Amino acid sequence: MDLDLIRKLAIPADTKIVFLVMDGLGGLPLEPEGLTELETACTPNLDSLAQRSVSGCALPLGAGITPGSGPGHLALFGYDPFRYVIGRGVLEALGIDFDLGPQDVAGRGNFCTVDSEGKVTDRRAGRIATETCVRLTSLLRENVRLPGVELFIEPVKEHRFVLVLRGTGLAGDVTESDPQQPGVNPLTITPIPGATDPAASQRTADLVNEFSAQARRILSSEPAANMVLLRGLDRRPSIPTMQEAFGLRAAAIAVYPMYRGLAKLVGMTALPSGTKLADEFDTLERAWPQHDFFYLHFKYTDSRGEDGDFAAKVAMIEEFDQYVPRVMALKPDVVVVTGDHSTPALMKGHSWHPVPSLLHSRFCRCDGTQLFGERACARGALGTFASVDLMPLALANALRLAKYGA
Amino acid sequence: MDLDLIRKLAIPADTKIVFLVMDGLGGLPLEPEGLTELETACTPNLDSLAQRSVSGCALPLGAGITPGSGPGHLALFGYDPFRYVIGRGVLEALGIDFDLGPQDVAGRGNFCTVDSEGKVTDRRAGRIATETCVRLTSLLRENVRLPGVELFIEPVKEHRFVLVLRGTGLAGDVTESDPQQPGVNPLTITPIPGATDPAASQRTADLVNEFSAQARRILSSEPAANMVLLRGLDRRPSIPTMQEAFGLRAAAIAVYPMYRGLAKLVGMTALPSGTKLADEFDTLERAWPQHDFFYLHFKYTDSRGEDGDFAAKVAMIEEFDQYVPRVMALKPDVVVVTGDHSTPALMKGHSWHPVPSLLHSRFCRCDGTQLFGERACARGALGTFASVDLMPLALANALRLAKYGA
Repeated sequence: MDLDLIRKLAIPADTKIVFLVMDGLGGLPLEPEGLTELETACTPNLDSLAQRSVSGCALPLGAGITPGSGPGHLALFGYDPFRYVIGRGVLEALGIDFDLGPQDVAGRGNFCTVDSEGKVTDRRAGRIATETCVRLTSLLRENVRLPGVELFIEPVKEHRFVLVLRGTGLAGDVTESDPQQPGVNPLTITPIPGATDPAASQRTADLVNEFSAQARRILSSEPAANMVLLRGLDRRPSIPTMQEAFGLRAAAIAVYPMYRGLAKLVGMTALPSGTKLADEFDTLERAWPQHDFFYLHFKYTDSRGEDGDFAAKVAMIEEFDQYVPRVMALKPDVVVVTGDHSTPALMKGHSWHPVPSLLHSRFCRCDGTQLFGERACARGALGTFASVDLMPLALANALRLAKYGA
Repeated sequence: MDLDLIRKLAIPADTKIVFLVMDGLGGLPLEPEGLTELETACTPNLDSLAQRSVSGCALPLGAGITPGSGPGHLALFGYDPFRYVIGRGVLEALGIDFDLGPQDVAGRGNFCTVDSEGKVTDRRAGRIATETCVRLTSLLRENVRLPGVELFIEPVKEHRFVLVLRGTGLAGDVTESDPQQPGVNPLTITPIPGATDPAASQRTADLVNEFSAQARRILSSEPAANMVLLRGLDRRPSIPTMQEAFGLRAAAIAVYPMYRGLAKLVGMTALPSGTKLADEFDTLERAWPQHDFFYLHFKYTDSRGEDGDFAAKVAMIEEFDQYVPRVMALKPDVVVVTGDHSTPALMKGHSWHPVPSLLHSRFCRCDGTQLFGERACARGALGTFASVDLMPLALANALRLAKYGA
């Protein structure tokens, strides 16, 4: 449903909504006729909740489309992920908890190796150690000088770093210097055809090209990481906050910086969330009176799926299940349990499969689902539905949407 | 499916379609794990029909969106309710059986109370008796004179009336004079930014402002209702008739004026329908040879839901069920049973929940549904589907749509 319409219909209410998001929740059986990770897991609390809920399978982006974490989360938060696009550099900056301003341009950087002619011989500089990355970003930070902008060069991991330009008259809509193959020179960055603000994009391209040129000189004596490649240069998307769009005082509870960053993009308050799952639920209880909406993110279902470790992902789901009674004890008006995408251990990565999901409220119209799992949810009353519809549904169940038309 | 496409594919056929619309049909259980009104009702005829039908849950507007009667019905009639918008004044005029012309501008009026400075002290004039409203609308009708337009001032109920301007060069796209709060003056009506025909909107605004000024003088000696407020001024939406869009000679059978009016908006013939449900089925039988499509509307499922009277809504559904054999005896080619929205007694009002629906025809591909109810329909082969898709489905089952493409 269109965000602009939801925005017009949103009304205040004294109700609370909780989104419990198990990252990469959806899975696959190891054998075609077997059980998925969630179906295998012993989840008495989620099953009991499913019996008092309406359920379905949430499709984050569309049939067959495998979501990245950015668009997967935007859809859950009620924003059309094709309308609001998060550049790779922006996501990388969020991932290191960089406090990105609305005018900043962020890009994802790689240290790489070039030969004497400047041709790329290794796009990842032999995956240098993270300590080397830290040392080299310091070196660049101390020596690169660009006119009229503030510069941030932050290490990420191994060969990866984040470049942020801060100043006025900057824009995205520029190409990348990474040629995506060895044996050729890094590319000169230029505005893309149809750039919204061609002059600002040209200025940004010039500055990043100058950064690359200076970096090459400064790094010339390095054995491996003697050059940089830049990708995904962009500004934060201009996006209404959850307060503006839905009238919600929203809070995020997440251990990983990237998810806190995604939540901050839509105006959520990122609460200090500790390091363990227990810390996150402690935070939820402590912050309960101050917010209307809580997004609680659990990373490790995805991590174990990415590892291809079926049993470990099952164990993560079982760990999460134990905390469900603590949520219900707070008597939320609406509880949603879902994921931002599927990460089947069988595939060791994100997948396109819809995500088992449930919504509980006094007005949810229970559908008789007995178990929380892929097949049970697919037969639920919500069927296979768009993830972006979860937010309007939650708002309606929280009595926060007015009638459309007389 | 897009109306323009359906229009191109529509072909004539000697087949008949019946839409049985129980207003506010969908419901909720009083206790989370209980039965809804429809699930509670003893409906042997609808259950038997469901066994020979394809079923599903119809979503009138979208996930979480609670429909008003106007958009809810437009969707059932096959018209995109976001493309064809019915102004509040138009709906109010339809509700009193006012025969609104395509050029007329209709507004919803309130009698209100203002103090000596003209500030609103009561937006509803103490909810004056309907007889007072009748007297005051007569007084205005006899005394207000506006240049170049014909004027209709019709009582509705208590403080509410309808104002209609008839003439050329009029338009909607104007603001409202109701300030929505006491203690301030009524607002001057102006064209809205982006009005389609600014000159016509300006003329309309001037005329309505002049009407308000004259009304204030005429009503000055009234103790309570000494001023008027106008809202929702608009023309009828320009909308293809069901004859034009679908090639159907369509008829409406409805007791309440507003539903007859909505049907007339899309070019249906509103048949004299009596006052009781039995009268409506008598009308259906009598008019059977003359039309291809019948919309039969039953109001009281919604009314008892709005009352919060679960048992009475159950009784209304059971009453309706008894008439189903009379419909089937006419041997219609396609029968649809649905509602324009849900009105759970638990919520005492319209809600966002999808509406249990069935479609019966020789070609419907029965899905094995055994009972007509929310949960059974949600598991039906149509799943949760858009209400606006019911009309193309019905046309197809009536062999009234040609193949698309070669």
